[in-house]
Amino acid sequence: MPLDIYDKLMMLAKRRGFIYPSFEIYGGSAGFYDYGPLGSRLKQNIENLWRKFYILKDNCLEISTPTVTLFEVLKASGHVEEFTDLTVDCKKCKQSFKVEEIIEEKDSIENTIDKDNIKCPNCRSKLMNPYPVNLMFSTKIGFGKSRDAFLRPETAQGIFIDFHLLYRYNREKLPFGVIQIGKGYRNEVSPRQGIIRLREFSMAEAEIFFDPKDKNHQNFDLVKNKELYLYDNKKEKKYSLEKAVNDKIINNQALAYYMHLTHEFLIAAGVDQKKFRFRKHDKNELAHYAEECWDAELYSERFGWIECVGIADRSAYDLKSHIKKSGTDMYATRKYDKPRIVKNKKIIPKMDELGPLFKKKAGEIKIILENMEVKKLDKISVKIDGKTIEIPKTCYNVIEKKEKQTGEKFIPHVIEPSYGIDRILYCILEHNFIETRKKDEEYRILKLNPIISPIKVAVLPLINDNDLSKIAKEIDLSLRNSGIETYYDEGGTIGRRYARMDEIGTPFCITVDHDSLEDNSITIRDRDTTNQVRIKINDIINVILNRISS
Amino acid sequence: MPLDIYDKLMMLAKRRGFIYPSFEIYGGSAGFYDYGPLGSRLKQNIENLWRKFYILKDNCLEISTPTVTLFEVLKASGHVEEFTDLTVDCKKCKQSFKVEEIIEEKDSIENTIDKDNIKCPNCRSKLMNPYPVNLMFSTKIGFGKSRDAFLRPETAQGIFIDFHLLYRYNREKLPFGVIQIGKGYRNEVSPRQGIIRLREFSMAEAEIFFDPKDKNHQNFDLVKNKELYLYDNKKEKKYSLEKAVNDKIINNQALAYYMHLTHEFLIAAGVDQKKFRFRKHDKNELAHYAEECWDAELYSERFGWIECVGIADRSAYDLKSHIKKSGTDMYATRKYDKPRIVKNKKIIPKMDELGPLFKKKAGEIKIILENMEVKKLDKISVKIDGKTIEIPKTCYNVIEKKEKQTGEKFIPHVIEPSYGIDRILYCILEHNFIETRKKDEEYRILKLNPIISPIKVAVLPLINDNDLSKIAKEIDLSLRNSGIETYYDEGGTIGRRYARMDEIGTPFCITVDHDSLEDNSITIRDRDTTNQVRIKINDIINVILNRISS
Repeated sequence: MPLDIYDKLMMLAKRRGFIYPSFEIYGGSAGFYDYGPLGSRLKQNIENLWRKFYILKDNCLEISTPTVTLFEVLKASGHVEEFTDLTVDCKKCKQSFKVEEIIEEKDSIENTIDKDNIKCPNCRSKLMNPYPVNLMFSTKIGFGKSRDAFLRPETAQGIFIDFHLLYRYNREKLPFGVIQIGKGYRNEVSPRQGIIRLREFSMAEAEIFFDPKDKNHQNFDLVKNKELYLYDNKKEKKYSLEKAVNDKIINNQALAYYMHLTHEFLIAAGVDQKKFRFRKHDKNELAHYAEECWDAELYSERFGWIECVGIADRSAYDLKSHIKKSGTDMYATRKYDKPRIVKNKKIIPKMDELGPLFKKKAGEIKIILENMEVKKLDKISVKIDGKTIEIPKTCYNVIEKKEKQTGEKFIPHVIEPSYGIDRILYCILEHNFIETRKKDEEYRILKLNPIISPIKVAVLPLINDNDLSKIAKEIDLSLRNSGIETYYDEGGTIGRRYARMDEIGTPFCITVDHDSLEDNSITIRDRDTTNQVRIKINDIINVILNRISS
Repeated sequence: MPLDIYDKLMMLAKRRGFIYPSFEIYGGSAGFYDYGPLGSRLKQNIENLWRKFYILKDNCLEISTPTVTLFEVLKASGHVEEFTDLTVDCKKCKQSFKVEEIIEEKDSIENTIDKDNIKCPNCRSKLMNPYPVNLMFSTKIGFGKSRDAFLRPETAQGIFIDFHLLYRYNREKLPFGVIQIGKGYRNEVSPRQGIIRLREFSMAEAEIFFDPKDKNHQNFDLVKNKELYLYDNKKEKKYSLEKAVNDKIINNQALAYYMHLTHEFLIAAGVDQKKFRFRKHDKNELAHYAEECWDAELYSERFGWIECVGIADRSAYDLKSHIKKSGTDMYATRKYDKPRIVKNKKIIPKMDELGPLFKKKAGEIKIILENMEVKKLDKISVKIDGKTIEIPKTCYNVIEKKEKQTGEKFIPHVIEPSYGIDRILYCILEHNFIETRKKDEEYRILKLNPIISPIKVAVLPLINDNDLSKIAKEIDLSLRNSGIETYYDEGGTIGRRYARMDEIGTPFCITVDHDSLEDNSITIRDRDTTNQVRIKINDIINVILNRISS
């Protein structure tokens, strides 16, 4: 079987220092990869470009929270119950499989296995009795009286549980966005897709908090005529943002705006427009927290359409859960034009009655009662863990209170663009990988956008000569001092050295030749056109800075 | 008790969005902190400044490897056995304590507890029977046939196990350095020092690989006259780098050079020179992998001298262990001027004899035998897990071979500067925190160096006026488009707004006033002098870029 593009790229990635399989000297472990010197640089450049879009353009705040996350947080968020994959074990060869990956039909996934005659992909035994497996890595904090914890499945929860602090930081104004870039973890049953399905991955997430009554975006008007390819799982069609929102293809301006921002970012990062689309989640594939979700999908020759970004309307799901479980005031306020005097019926819980009756749940019930809007008084019931519990009248008093209100409280809704950085990085490599031949040899070029290229400029003395090397080293140093990543290389023919740089995506090569000694000029070679232009040494930094920043 | 500087700083840090206790809405968990919008920016600025020193100045390569680390890696590195704290439990109140923290004398730590009458700091019961506890967070990869893993205690091992790939990337030349910035984990028994003792922390580590016969640094001559304060646990004395190396106070140039680089970096980041020293580790406190170690210590009013950077000579410890355990060729080659023909005695192990005799250890013994220099032949023994095992003559043949050698193989030595980013960040805040009074009110200033300040410029219309706001917003946007972090603020008196910016360390405030409408100028206020200078709007970006880059 000839190598496909994935094999070829991963060979190049390992040979040239982009990506290594992790722990290889100990036999490796599926789902873990290292970024080598060039890969680490490339990944950081992609992340910093993303920051430009979300921090500088969209004014988001960035925070950074731990990867080790308390059980309580992920219990409240629903991940302890919902973050699962249906799994099946082979009794004979002892391997485990994710059901979704070994059956054809996505529908009726629960039933397929037991009903049909599904064979183990490994030893062909019949597979039976699938069961859900939680995909979080678990650990414990401390010793003795230790606490249960998980490695976070998403960075988002770290943002949600700080919402009240961040809302205050933003001077209690909505909408505002908070981003986090960092590691996420997913203990896959048996990852088989290389760098596309990682157990430890890098994500960039934005949680934009909106008043649910106003999911418009202030910059929407500037971009409403931009067009996107939208795929509804049947057909793909081009829509302007405005039309998509008006026709309710996309539910609101906020979702549409962040789809647009995602498109802009991915194109700027070097994704091929022709291998890009947005796909809407069917109702039955939505995550447990999502009301609507669009995936930005990128096409790969081996893997087909890959989900690289999810843009979800998480509504009030997460904040509501955390308010309920923690009892913290995480509401926002919609200010009235002038304060109002309102009569409110309030429930005053009696803990000495609730305690003996409801034991551990009494505290939670107290918080629900205190925050309940009282309409009918004959019968009060609360919902806990899915069960409705009636609260006896002996457990509370009801009082009527006049209150001055400056506004009404509500739980903000969240629009979440969530980016898988590793998948995006892989797709950028694939979309920009060119194989050709030169002088009867294989010749590879990575046409990376200068803004994300790991090395911006190679500095090459034409031949190995002390005078030329001296000038070249000075140029190299001055570029580095200006914060520009360079690679200095004086080994081999100039053609060989250009080839090395083309293969790792370096957009510019500076060559110092004997004329440089006389005229203080050098040539700059452009990777994509192979054109060479002669410029003054003093102008190098400005020329390069100009060309790598756009 | 009045608040000390730590309390005051942490209150400011929470109120203004630098640092929040993690999971606070669920009761929090000691040893975990979140970085808020300003803290996250500050931390990134410190890390990027560090990168300038190690990547641009020292030419190191950066890589990025997983935090989840296979058991085998940390078994080989010695962490499974050695990364422990002596711990004691209180039988009565069920709390656990780190012995080191509750006894006075650091000597004879093993005996103190059982011999002396040490009381529980909590309930005053007598404490007995201390035992070592491994401080790594443990987890499992996969299900069914799962593999044991830990959260990495240091980023270094990810670099060591890729050494052969990185050596090839660097075209097999020594010395060269590899850095990694990322999370490290240490499941402390009971952390009690706030942000100074974290269970999940950020570290920046550099592993510089040297030929053990040549631990000189190419830039040493440029810095040999620089002076450092060195503390040998008895007295502190100022030494030039050259004298310290010549007098063997510091063992080699490489160690001395990275101590100097550490000093330069910390001062550039804003550490107070008067609260800075290097302390040499006593022999009995060296980590299990270290031959010599110097700590860069920073002084804190509450905590005293804090270890913020460790600069260790790890010798060949780690690479040797990984070569032995994995059987991977991780040697470097010292090239001869011309190839040599050498007669070599080589041991050819017989697996069919070794196998039945040594079972699981046979493979490891085979690798050791193959790589052994054969001198005496009457008795061959190998050392495994601390035990010396004699190998019977029936288990191998010895042959003599003529070989062409281009160089000799050796295991590189490693100099490791390892930085605790969170501690450095805290000390920078403490060293630059000024409390004073203004108009009879408390007034706080953070005199952060502009290069690490989270916000570089505040943009303030003098009063709330549409014309002024319009200009101010244009200035704000153009600064952001140039990558400069700004804060736009039109709320409150101008004095109040200056005060807010002084408190978070913003070095410059731009004020747009009514004259700006006529003369296209604004005033720039300097935080530290409070001087105001009037400049043209067109010059703003250059002026600011100039002042924040040095």
